[in-house]
Amino acid sequence: MSSADDGLLPADDGLLASDHGLLASDDGLLAPGRVDSAVEAATGDAAYVRALLDAEAALTRAQAAVGLAPSAAAEAVTAAARDTGRYDARDLAVRARSGGNPVIPLVGALTSAVAERAPDAAAYVHRGATSQDILDTATMLVCSRALAAVLGDLDDTAAALARLAVEHRDTPMAGRTLTQHAVPTTFGLKAAGWRGLVLDARDRLAAVRAALPAQLGGAAGTLAAFHAFAEADGRGPVPDLGPQLLAAYAAETGLAEPVLPWHTLRTPVADLAGALAHTAGALGKVAADVLALSRTEIGELAEGSGGGSSAMPHKANPVRATLIAATARQVPALAGVLYGSLAAEDERPAGAWHAEWQPLRDALRLVGGAARDAAELAAGLRVRTERMRANLAATGGGIVAERLAAVLGAHLGRDAAKRLLTDVSRRAAEDGTGLAEALDRALRARHPAVAYAFPAARLRELADPAAYTGSAGALVDRALRRPGAQPAAPTPQENA
Amino acid sequence: MSSADDGLLPADDGLLASDHGLLASDDGLLAPGRVDSAVEAATGDAAYVRALLDAEAALTRAQAAVGLAPSAAAEAVTAAARDTGRYDARDLAVRARSGGNPVIPLVGALTSAVAERAPDAAAYVHRGATSQDILDTATMLVCSRALAAVLGDLDDTAAALARLAVEHRDTPMAGRTLTQHAVPTTFGLKAAGWRGLVLDARDRLAAVRAALPAQLGGAAGTLAAFHAFAEADGRGPVPDLGPQLLAAYAAETGLAEPVLPWHTLRTPVADLAGALAHTAGALGKVAADVLALSRTEIGELAEGSGGGSSAMPHKANPVRATLIAATARQVPALAGVLYGSLAAEDERPAGAWHAEWQPLRDALRLVGGAARDAAELAAGLRVRTERMRANLAATGGGIVAERLAAVLGAHLGRDAAKRLLTDVSRRAAEDGTGLAEALDRALRARHPAVAYAFPAARLRELADPAAYTGSAGALVDRALRRPGAQPAAPTPQENA
Amino acid sequence: MSSADDGLLPADDGLLASDHGLLASDDGLLAPGRVDSAVEAATGDAAYVRALLDAEAALTRAQAAVGLAPSAAAEAVTAAARDTGRYDARDLAVRARSGGNPVIPLVGALTSAVAERAPDAAAYVHRGATSQDILDTATMLVCSRALAAVLGDLDDTAAALARLAVEHRDTPMAGRTLTQHAVPTTFGLKAAGWRGLVLDARDRLAAVRAALPAQLGGAAGTLAAFHAFAEADGRGPVPDLGPQLLAAYAAETGLAEPVLPWHTLRTPVADLAGALAHTAGALGKVAADVLALSRTEIGELAEGSGGGSSAMPHKANPVRATLIAATARQVPALAGVLYGSLAAEDERPAGAWHAEWQPLRDALRLVGGAARDAAELAAGLRVRTERMRANLAATGGGIVAERLAAVLGAHLGRDAAKRLLTDVSRRAAEDGTGLAEALDRALRARHPAVAYAFPAARLRELADPAAYTGSAGALVDRALRRPGAQPAAPTPQENA
Amino acid sequence: MSSADDGLLPADDGLLASDHGLLASDDGLLAPGRVDSAVEAATGDAAYVRALLDAEAALTRAQAAVGLAPSAAAEAVTAAARDTGRYDARDLAVRARSGGNPVIPLVGALTSAVAERAPDAAAYVHRGATSQDILDTATMLVCSRALAAVLGDLDDTAAALARLAVEHRDTPMAGRTLTQHAVPTTFGLKAAGWRGLVLDARDRLAAVRAALPAQLGGAAGTLAAFHAFAEADGRGPVPDLGPQLLAAYAAETGLAEPVLPWHTLRTPVADLAGALAHTAGALGKVAADVLALSRTEIGELAEGSGGGSSAMPHKANPVRATLIAATARQVPALAGVLYGSLAAEDERPAGAWHAEWQPLRDALRLVGGAARDAAELAAGLRVRTERMRANLAATGGGIVAERLAAVLGAHLGRDAAKRLLTDVSRRAAEDGTGLAEALDRALRARHPAVAYAFPAARLRELADPAAYTGSAGALVDRALRRPGAQPAAPTPQENA
Repeated sequence: MSSADDGLLPADDGLLASDHGLLASDDGLLAPGRVDSAVEAATGDAAYVRALLDAEAALTRAQAAVGLAPSAAAEAVTAAARDTGRYDARDLAVRARSGGNPVIPLVGALTSAVAERAPDAAAYVHRGATSQDILDTATMLVCSRALAAVLGDLDDTAAALARLAVEHRDTPMAGRTLTQHAVPTTFGLKAAGWRGLVLDARDRLAAVRAALPAQLGGAAGTLAAFHAFAEADGRGPVPDLGPQLLAAYAAETGLAEPVLPWHTLRTPVADLAGALAHTAGALGKVAADVLALSRTEIGELAEGSGGGSSAMPHKANPVRATLIAATARQVPALAGVLYGSLAAEDERPAGAWHAEWQPLRDALRLVGGAARDAAELAAGLRVRTERMRANLAATGGGIVAERLAAVLGAHLGRDAAKRLLTDVSRRAAEDGTGLAEALDRALRARHPAVAYAFPAARLRELADPAAYTGSAGALVDRALRRPGAQPAAPTPQENA
Repeated sequence: MSSADDGLLPADDGLLASDHGLLASDDGLLAPGRVDSAVEAATGDAAYVRALLDAEAALTRAQAAVGLAPSAAAEAVTAAARDTGRYDARDLAVRARSGGNPVIPLVGALTSAVAERAPDAAAYVHRGATSQDILDTATMLVCSRALAAVLGDLDDTAAALARLAVEHRDTPMAGRTLTQHAVPTTFGLKAAGWRGLVLDARDRLAAVRAALPAQLGGAAGTLAAFHAFAEADGRGPVPDLGPQLLAAYAAETGLAEPVLPWHTLRTPVADLAGALAHTAGALGKVAADVLALSRTEIGELAEGSGGGSSAMPHKANPVRATLIAATARQVPALAGVLYGSLAAEDERPAGAWHAEWQPLRDALRLVGGAARDAAELAAGLRVRTERMRANLAATGGGIVAERLAAVLGAHLGRDAAKRLLTDVSRRAAEDGTGLAEALDRALRARHPAVAYAFPAARLRELADPAAYTGSAGALVDRALRRPGAQPAAPTPQENA
Repeated sequence: MSSADDGLLPADDGLLASDHGLLASDDGLLAPGRVDSAVEAATGDAAYVRALLDAEAALTRAQAAVGLAPSAAAEAVTAAARDTGRYDARDLAVRARSGGNPVIPLVGALTSAVAERAPDAAAYVHRGATSQDILDTATMLVCSRALAAVLGDLDDTAAALARLAVEHRDTPMAGRTLTQHAVPTTFGLKAAGWRGLVLDARDRLAAVRAALPAQLGGAAGTLAAFHAFAEADGRGPVPDLGPQLLAAYAAETGLAEPVLPWHTLRTPVADLAGALAHTAGALGKVAADVLALSRTEIGELAEGSGGGSSAMPHKANPVRATLIAATARQVPALAGVLYGSLAAEDERPAGAWHAEWQPLRDALRLVGGAARDAAELAAGLRVRTERMRANLAATGGGIVAERLAAVLGAHLGRDAAKRLLTDVSRRAAEDGTGLAEALDRALRARHPAVAYAFPAARLRELADPAAYTGSAGALVDRALRRPGAQPAAPTPQENA
Repeated sequence: MSSADDGLLPADDGLLASDHGLLASDDGLLAPGRVDSAVEAATGDAAYVRALLDAEAALTRAQAAVGLAPSAAAEAVTAAARDTGRYDARDLAVRARSGGNPVIPLVGALTSAVAERAPDAAAYVHRGATSQDILDTATMLVCSRALAAVLGDLDDTAAALARLAVEHRDTPMAGRTLTQHAVPTTFGLKAAGWRGLVLDARDRLAAVRAALPAQLGGAAGTLAAFHAFAEADGRGPVPDLGPQLLAAYAAETGLAEPVLPWHTLRTPVADLAGALAHTAGALGKVAADVLALSRTEIGELAEGSGGGSSAMPHKANPVRATLIAATARQVPALAGVLYGSLAAEDERPAGAWHAEWQPLRDALRLVGGAARDAAELAAGLRVRTERMRANLAATGGGIVAERLAAVLGAHLGRDAAKRLLTDVSRRAAEDGTGLAEALDRALRARHPAVAYAFPAARLRELADPAAYTGSAGALVDRALRRPGAQPAAPTPQENA
């Protein structure tokens, strides 16, 4: 029964255009890293529709606040915007094609909804605004809401890592450089370092989130249409109507007030790009270490509940670390697209702006999922101190050679000490003797005068990796004095 | 009614976990460039589920073909895989989290479905395979199906561009370099160049598509489990069972047979990355030109049916070109992620593979939408030859200065000719005289001997931009001799 | 004389290995954007060698400060490090190959230089440190020095843009969206927006620069070797020796003191990446606008001294804007590499760190050149207000249709007003009548009652683009209240 | 002696502008991966100058070939171009700033050099061409020359890997997925897979190299200036002069003949981008595996001569693999810039073209260095088969559980077999018994009937990892049948 003769139809046969929507949906099948996270729900099409409606309602309210619209209209628009069930994301998406953005059909749908409730209010829907005002503002609302969840997960991650750093302040393990054992470190120092990076990410995201601005500029950033409507209403010139509206709109949306409309001054998006890429990388560092230390031969760490494999019952895969690592590979590229969109020509660019939409959402979703996974990973991480201890012996004492070279160097000279240690380490590794013992023998044989100063017990102490962790403890203490979770800025309210 | 006192709940309040799926879906709201295209439907989660089921069914059939499974089992699995309505993408996505990929829950669901029909066949579902075998194979099926649509749209685009090149073989327009008029060219040459790039893209995508391989390697690429099952069935050693299975699987899927399992030998994905990035850029070139030439002040091109603006009735936005330009900004970054995933450690990497899934799909969808838009754009493009002609005069003859410098240079010397032309061009531009007339005057006044050789009519001819298009016509003819649409490789069949 | 028979040798023939260095050098031939800028000189190999030597000398001084080295040794190392002529970058580069970084051969050379002056001091060179301590610290010194120049150029750019914004506060020009005229704006608002972006970039770079940390951790980040040397010197345990050294090293280098060694906690590099990508994009926005507005048909802006073309005397290319645009295309990708390197395994990663070196330098150089070019561009920009005025007429009044629709809509109803305007605009554009006049005629004919309220003079005023700039003036005033240049943090000193 | 009071000057003090060039040079200090490679020398500024001169000389020869220039002029230009010592890259770089590209000053210098030899020939230098004709052609020459070296190194790498695959066809080692032992594989299969990827890279680079085209289009791609010169010479119209010249120029340069001038049809650059990114990733895969398998705890592979560490005598760093891994992180981003430059507006874009120059060279240099390092790595790789064998025991038999589950499943049922194995594996791992022995005991105790079919010897055989490598051997044989090194296309000749 080969495919050639099974009489089956090719994949695209018989599809009706109306099927496309159903088949087209991305529900997370290829994105286990983000599925079921709070950020995923906060960034889906439905969440964007909600935020677009919030932005429209706030716009009418802001106009009411400065006398450009009756408050009844603001109430009607707000009420119609709350009825989110009326607005179907796929339908809007399809109707967005001709104009190139989803605000155009949404305005139509919202206007109809308002007209049903309060015919006189319909004219106030989207009045004076441009699509970008609404889409940018909605995007900032979505980002603010999504980042609240990310910050929470980063706080949880940092708290769990702080606990690990305290618990393992003095747990020795191999420090590794360029894949090779170098000198000992402690797992506490590693965990404290992870926490520091996570707090760096948290601080950057929180600062960006607190500054997310509302967008309002009208067709070309001068807010001129609002002046025209004031004029049509018979009001005299109001030179600072624009600034008034920016303030009112910021207040209504709960977002920051921008100095200028930023249709093509994209610092807010660039700042998001940078903070999201940093966060992905910071969590990626934790994941990279977990993956290395989970290797079968190393076995120092294991995820709390690893991913099973149907075929291989002995396997417990570091699934969360894997998914975080996959995120860390993707977000820098998305951030690059967003940084690239800073170079946007004119008052609204033909492409640069449109190229921001999905990459920004994708970056949010990837980071949101990774933060959730990192919190779970940190909370459940299993630390196998016995494997850490065992692995410290893997170089037959080489891992403390630096110390011995320094201490013996004061007696033998730097070069002679190094030569001795290279020689003794190799021999110890070959015949399985402990380094201290081999060194004891060698010193006695070759440098009896020096051997006198280094009795066997002293050599054992000097060769103990656990006793050669330098300032690790002091550094952990100092790192932990950096405060963790701060109260987050409030989430912008919504009307719907 | 400010947000501060409206008593509304924050966005994430009251969400049940079960709402997440609905809210999380991406139905194209932020992706007008891809919405409603054939590729969008061919690459949605539902299409992936279908392809995963195709891959599983083909696997059992392939085993039947080499004697590792009864043909009744293959039929039962194939039948159960056809019943695509049983498998819900979101449900699979959620259950994919613990193991990190969607094949694990799909195998469970398919096994149940088979067991209902033919209990004995259930054991043959996914037998011997690893998740990556199925996911990679399904991805190649999805790519093959999606690329069939892309190739069709590129063919249509190239055909429309060929028509434009023929029609406008001798339509003069300004050649522009670094934003400034340089010398004349023809719109035919521009269109022929666009077509050449589109055909380059088509050729690259077609070659990649024809080589998309099936994936089959088992847990670590040795296909050892199939040997174990043969052993369990009491068959003696079959050293080349792997190669046999690779051939049978390729035949059943309609994909190419790989030399080796390619779990971490990702040339097929890298080749897709390159061809998709090339296509996005090729279409992006067309869009960049359309955008530049659509500018209000230039007005040489317009999209057939431009995007209207609700606020500004005079506007007709080049929406398709804008969306294509947005695609050209995104795909190189996604391709970068895919190229980065070549460096995949071990027999299955912890992150590099997972980082391919969404970027590859996103690149396909972006390119698929852009190809659709390009075909529409090319078919409907309005060419305003009168604006082209008018704009040729914008430099007051400067655009033919090169020619005049060459021809006069033979008489006056290179440098003197240049100086004369610079001077005359400037004056002609200032006082609005035609260049030919101004030159006529200047030659008579300053170089009467040379003026003799250049009567006014000859100067007008030399100063006519339409007469200075060099080899444009010959190049168009030559470019059009390159053949366009080729019959595509057949689409891999599906069983479901 | 074809290449086939000219008997010449292929390019790589006869090259001696010793030629490689000479041939290999990158002296800026392909990088006109950076050539001859202060940043180029501050980031060349020679500047890095100098910074590496500064880092080594500061290290010995820091050890002297905490009692780990005699002050005579610190003086000897500092003196030997000042003799920069001894150290040849290419020679070090070649010798860096075997160990994979340039510190290893540099330490050798410095040790020899010290030994010549003060044999006893030689043992204190690089004592206790790891290569990464020196290379990271040197990189931070180079960044600090280079960014001082960048900040100066950004200040100059912002100051020139402020002058343009003041001068052209009320200069009307077309606002353009998706390549089409939308509504009027002012050049003052555009310049104020550019300035705002440049100040955003400046603020981000200045903040990053002020926090650039020294690096010191020893082989695996515990600073253990320093403890070993203290031990060898017979000092008792000094648990906080690490923190003491970090403080002393920061003081000696003039860099910030890190909480922890950051060998694999790469926030400083990621922050640089983000700020550099932002700056490139901010300048890229200015360049994108200059390029669009310099187009032959638009002609509203021109670079002060454009690039000439040998072949086409009429051309004046916007060379600086072109080079800045090229920079804006490259830096996001380099930043992506740097963000990607956050995910660095172990105590020193095998690849992620090495992948930072050139991309960080390249990003600095590109941004440094672009800031220099932007300062020149802004200082010399020619603004052709007459072309701005002329272009405002390009849509035959369409550019003020929004205003007229609003004002007339109050009398005729929204939809009727829009229909009227669409109709009248089209006719006005076709027959060349002014919009006001055409509207006057149409109102009288079709809506005599309304016409009464809109005498011809009022219509002319309403149809004057210069009178429809909304809040542009108020926004310029407000934007200019944002302060410009701030005194920069001091540049870290150097000993050499 | 702190920096605050040492009276030293900041780094940029006292620098004369004339110092900039010396300080600015990049001689490889930060690029140990490329230093001293053939590609580095073939891609330095000096090599570009040489190629630019080659392109100019070939241009005059091509014109001579079609009768547009006297052959004496072609000889004079060729001779002057050979005198490469006259042309200083830095000087050209500085003088390139005003026009934005290095061809403008080079033409001046070459014209002077020709004029000294043959005054009449000077007018034929660069005649009819645009800067981009020369720079693009020179870039293709540089790429062709550099890729010849890359291909050689890839051939050497593939040959060494083939030897490893043959030698270790049956050397068992752990197959690893998501960092965990999965089932056994062989080192031969791994080496054969590496070789396959390297050959994929080789094939792609060779195909791209063979198609690298010459560039010739004149100011706007119509070759019109050549027509003007023919006209000035009194020749009648030559409609296909352009095609004639393209053919002649291709012949003179040794490059391929393009169908059209490709100033903004950048397929050749995009193809280079893709092939270079593929190569970097292919070598990056080898490096990723070498790095993982070199880890201290794994120790299955080691570089032939690893990088020593001054402080830690026991360390032998995998330096080449590290540098290759660093390359694999950078090239995809550079390729993304190049793909992005496909979307180039007009007949010469303001930025997109300029953004290609350094990224293309950097990608070449990185890949060239990595190929050199890969060849060394592959030739010197130390394979520790005893560590491979030892590590296979790390899971206490879990690594063969799949096989045992299959074979026992035929007797006990699939689920019961799995449960038994999970249980026995865990116990075996805990108490250190061999899996075969533990299974023997368990079977006897719980499934005596089945135990009868599986005597201890049979269980030992089934539990031997070396006996569970599936089709590895057959796959190696098949992979090695793919031929390796092919004769390369000849290197374009040069005149200088």
